[in-house]
Amino acid sequence: MDDIARHVDLANLTDEEEVVDLSADESGQALYQFVVDMYPICRSITGDGVRRTIDLIRNYIPLTTCEVPSGLQVFDWTVPPEWNVRDAYIKNSAGERVVDFKRSNLHLLNYSVPVRARMTLDELKPHLYTDPEKPDWIPYRTSYYKATWGFCLPHNQLLAMREDDYEVCVDASLGPGHLTYGELRVPGRTSEEVLISCHICHPSMCNDNLSGIAVATALAQHLCNMEPRYTYRFLFVPGTIGSITWLALNEARVGRVKHGFVLTCVGDPGPMTYKRSRRGNTEIDRAWSYVLEQCADPHEIQDFSPYGYDERQYCSPGFDLPIGTVMRTPFGKFAEYHSSADNLDFVRPDALRDTLSKVIATIDIIENNMYYRSVKPFCEPRLGIYGLYSGLGGLAAGDFQLALLWVLNMSDGENSLLDIAERARLSWGTIKKAAVALSEAGLIRSS
Amino acid sequence: MDDIARHVDLANLTDEEEVVDLSADESGQALYQFVVDMYPICRSITGDGVRRTIDLIRNYIPLTTCEVPSGLQVFDWTVPPEWNVRDAYIKNSAGERVVDFKRSNLHLLNYSVPVRARMTLDELKPHLYTDPEKPDWIPYRTSYYKATWGFCLPHNQLLAMREDDYEVCVDASLGPGHLTYGELRVPGRTSEEVLISCHICHPSMCNDNLSGIAVATALAQHLCNMEPRYTYRFLFVPGTIGSITWLALNEARVGRVKHGFVLTCVGDPGPMTYKRSRRGNTEIDRAWSYVLEQCADPHEIQDFSPYGYDERQYCSPGFDLPIGTVMRTPFGKFAEYHSSADNLDFVRPDALRDTLSKVIATIDIIENNMYYRSVKPFCEPRLGIYGLYSGLGGLAAGDFQLALLWVLNMSDGENSLLDIAERARLSWGTIKKAAVALSEAGLIRSS
Amino acid sequence: MDDIARHVDLANLTDEEEVVDLSADESGQALYQFVVDMYPICRSITGDGVRRTIDLIRNYIPLTTCEVPSGLQVFDWTVPPEWNVRDAYIKNSAGERVVDFKRSNLHLLNYSVPVRARMTLDELKPHLYTDPEKPDWIPYRTSYYKATWGFCLPHNQLLAMREDDYEVCVDASLGPGHLTYGELRVPGRTSEEVLISCHICHPSMCNDNLSGIAVATALAQHLCNMEPRYTYRFLFVPGTIGSITWLALNEARVGRVKHGFVLTCVGDPGPMTYKRSRRGNTEIDRAWSYVLEQCADPHEIQDFSPYGYDERQYCSPGFDLPIGTVMRTPFGKFAEYHSSADNLDFVRPDALRDTLSKVIATIDIIENNMYYRSVKPFCEPRLGIYGLYSGLGGLAAGDFQLALLWVLNMSDGENSLLDIAERARLSWGTIKKAAVALSEAGLIRSS
Repeated sequence: MDDIARHVDLANLTDEEEVVDLSADESGQALYQFVVDMYPICRSITGDGVRRTIDLIRNYIPLTTCEVPSGLQVFDWTVPPEWNVRDAYIKNSAGERVVDFKRSNLHLLNYSVPVRARMTLDELKPHLYTDPEKPDWIPYRTSYYKATWGFCLPHNQLLAMREDDYEVCVDASLGPGHLTYGELRVPGRTSEEVLISCHICHPSMCNDNLSGIAVATALAQHLCNMEPRYTYRFLFVPGTIGSITWLALNEARVGRVKHGFVLTCVGDPGPMTYKRSRRGNTEIDRAWSYVLEQCADPHEIQDFSPYGYDERQYCSPGFDLPIGTVMRTPFGKFAEYHSSADNLDFVRPDALRDTLSKVIATIDIIENNMYYRSVKPFCEPRLGIYGLYSGLGGLAAGDFQLALLWVLNMSDGENSLLDIAERARLSWGTIKKAAVALSEAGLIRSS
Repeated sequence: MDDIARHVDLANLTDEEEVVDLSADESGQALYQFVVDMYPICRSITGDGVRRTIDLIRNYIPLTTCEVPSGLQVFDWTVPPEWNVRDAYIKNSAGERVVDFKRSNLHLLNYSVPVRARMTLDELKPHLYTDPEKPDWIPYRTSYYKATWGFCLPHNQLLAMREDDYEVCVDASLGPGHLTYGELRVPGRTSEEVLISCHICHPSMCNDNLSGIAVATALAQHLCNMEPRYTYRFLFVPGTIGSITWLALNEARVGRVKHGFVLTCVGDPGPMTYKRSRRGNTEIDRAWSYVLEQCADPHEIQDFSPYGYDERQYCSPGFDLPIGTVMRTPFGKFAEYHSSADNLDFVRPDALRDTLSKVIATIDIIENNMYYRSVKPFCEPRLGIYGLYSGLGGLAAGDFQLALLWVLNMSDGENSLLDIAERARLSWGTIKKAAVALSEAGLIRSS
Repeated sequence: MDDIARHVDLANLTDEEEVVDLSADESGQALYQFVVDMYPICRSITGDGVRRTIDLIRNYIPLTTCEVPSGLQVFDWTVPPEWNVRDAYIKNSAGERVVDFKRSNLHLLNYSVPVRARMTLDELKPHLYTDPEKPDWIPYRTSYYKATWGFCLPHNQLLAMREDDYEVCVDASLGPGHLTYGELRVPGRTSEEVLISCHICHPSMCNDNLSGIAVATALAQHLCNMEPRYTYRFLFVPGTIGSITWLALNEARVGRVKHGFVLTCVGDPGPMTYKRSRRGNTEIDRAWSYVLEQCADPHEIQDFSPYGYDERQYCSPGFDLPIGTVMRTPFGKFAEYHSSADNLDFVRPDALRDTLSKVIATIDIIENNMYYRSVKPFCEPRLGIYGLYSGLGGLAAGDFQLALLWVLNMSDGENSLLDIAERARLSWGTIKKAAVALSEAGLIRSS
């Protein structure tokens, strides 16, 4: 990557304004405000919208902006020409903008080629996209790899359009430039990596991409305040082509990735959904399943499928990375998906906060899920000697006392703390606390 | 086999009459007519009934008739003397045939030794077999390996018999001769074999043996019209001693058998039943389970048991072949089993046809269940380049588009198409079509 | 062990009185009488109570008494000083014994240090233990490793105690001596061992320790009347320190242990409970599960947990022995647990007898659960030749006939008789009988 991607220097974050710590946001209001700030930008898979998005994220975390030139071959794909839009509209003969990019950037077929023309409604219609099933919403449509132009509008608006002499303008540029993505490496005590990925290519939609960007940014802040065991790599990439580009440029580095997940559609009020990695039973899959099963909230664990977001690339058979997908209502399963209704009313502060809490809980497992070996494996050690036995003989043991016994008994180098928590049906917190106590007493050693 | 079994030349099938193609029989009427034609013959484990049965089958497929001499040692067994019957009856003192082999060949205890005698009812009774629980039906009984004679009759008829001077006649021959079976090899592109077996030793019963013979014959016609990947071997054998004989004569060939099933009791109106092979999770077991689970019809998947038909021999521990058993209502679970009520009213054209359809669907899986390897395993290939991407960005993918992604993602040489269809929960047909398209596009290769 | 533990000669059991055979006790009355006889003794982890208990058991089986000196280091533990009590009471100023060890040995905190003092109620109270939730029962409490004294009494009695000048006496000795346990080896045809363990350290409680001692004694008698395949080792040990001591002294012998279980709380009227060994799917686990699942009675199969009785030591990760735990209502799950209510009313003759029956049924499986290999693995042998085929051809096979087929088919050296019984869903008795018949016919051989 270092040879090809142009690196932008880190923003100087130590100015007078204090950085909001999104990870400390108890109500979710700061996360929501983050979404509000990002909402108006017209993003696509390349262009200034992505750059502005990354700049806003850099107010929170020291993200590196990476620029990859158009035309570069990345596996079976080519980095596309860069697309930027100044203006786009359809005017009627009275000179009124009946469809106006400036009112909603969803009105423009994403990656439309430039056009300036006058035409009848019949000539215009093949370029108009609507969703008759949701007649009041603007659908989101793209044409990245087929050179065409078009406008998206509510179906009811289309029905109301009359024959007229329409003026069509797409004032856009499409030519050599760069694909832009953001990358942040939070160094850990080991070089083994956890990869967190979200996409940043969707224009004004909130659940589908802004929610994931917000939670990923907050998680990065959380980790920057820790000294984590793993090195964490955050990718803020255009969907598909962005992750493909990153994988192509970092092929040699991919072996370091031990866990990871894609964050997407994590701000709606629906229950949490975790989609397993291709391998299906990796540690990250088990950690997420455990966190969701332990909480009292409804949730769903889905098997892997090769349709979705950038897990499609990370979990392609040549890479087969242990990377799952974290969602609330799965993409395509909420009516607002890929439409103007995926707006600031659809995402909720408490949902963003709830997702972040569960993300942090999962990271806590991954960070602490060690394999220990008992130093005294023959019979139980006499816990009283180590100050670890409480109470009078004859009374039932409490959870912490049980957790000590479980960790001692299972610590044969074959069972991780998560294995033990699952088998013991004790909480992760209790098992972790017992492991700390036993480790401090010299009774178990990390193996 | 070639040294011992006398081969009969193939019947010349190219005469003026056109052969009915049972596999093209949409209504099942032709399959049913096949059963009707076979019904009157008195079959046993040896003798002319078996030969006539094979001759009738040879009107449809170029079956080889194999003759194995009495007295040959086959594993722990000996090929028995040949049995043929001309007549058998019990006459009362008025000279009336009160029990008459010519009315139903079930009246004679199969393999009865010859006898001519006069006797009282009390002397006769130890030779009379009835089923008191089904008092109006003639039960089917045999005594292959214990030299005795007897008659089978409805229990109500026995109750009505009065003391009299009875004349008993079994005009049969039991002596050196041959055991006869039919064999057909349909050559495939590989020498790996699929073994299809049915028994041909039951006299006038329809579900228990004629239905299996009909469906096996139709399947053989179906395969003769294809160029299959596997070589198919059809065995039309007397139960137990026939399959034991074939296995003894073909021990060296058995290793080629990769899949197979026994066809029996497949014409009654009950739901389909598949009994797994001894190994329990072979490819044929999975293919049959998939076909039955995918169809909306009720069905049952049974574990292997060593009681049943010729799977007992194929799945004996020394052979342990991947051979299951295909039935509708399992033998012994329908009241008509082994009685005169297993007649032409009990089997149904539509049931025969339904079985054949599912047999052909399973064979389609076995034939096409390849392991592929993606040619471009790193990230997804750009399907649009290969003409395999339809639609505008932003819309949900259809089943075929999903199937392309599944086959690409899972094709790492470890997953067969059936594995993929099961994991994707897409139909076999869609997965197969996707694999064909990807193979033609050069994106996957058989591994 | 031989160097350290002082062995006591076997009691001469051949006197005029005939030994009661507990294993032949159909009603459970003899087992119950055994509990009655043991009930009054004040047991602890050391001392004369344990010796008297072992002496009483020696009326039934030739148990060896082993004495291990105080102060010996056993893994992380030390054999404690020996404790014996002559008397203990609390007298009021009127000279009345308001709490009296002689009325119930539970009144004394087990392992109390000697004391003689006068004190006020307020001074006394920190030494009084009650269970407010079960206010009429004396709780059972111990203080083996913390030097203190105390009395246990019903909570209602405590509430009724008034300010007074109390005289406290614990007339006990605590000093160098021995830890005592009983061991019996019943030699088998092989040196592979089955370990049966019960604890003998609880004072007057019936379900929690006397029931286990009774059933273990009866099982030992049962095995002394057999010539078992396995060598059986019975341990009657003080809980925790006793099994730790035995393991420390017998570390080299532990590898011989192939199966085993701990017997505890097996006399109450609740359903049977089996707690699996740490490994979770050993042969003893499967045998117990099979026995409990085959019987029509309610029962529970529990996963291993490292909290419980001496399985904690046997299943510590360094040993990880295939030893489960046999209970009726699990310890701690019956209200009477560790209190004076675990008395002669709580255990029942029929429950003791039912436990013993299931223990013997499980031992029968372990003893006979051989792996056989068919001598004629190619096709079925012709059972008629060996006198193993009954009935006329055409009739359904009975259970014994099916069992013959199952044992023949599965006997490839990979399936034990228990595997076969489970897969065949036939009773253990039928499968065992079939294996005997086939073995006698020379058709299968132990592999």
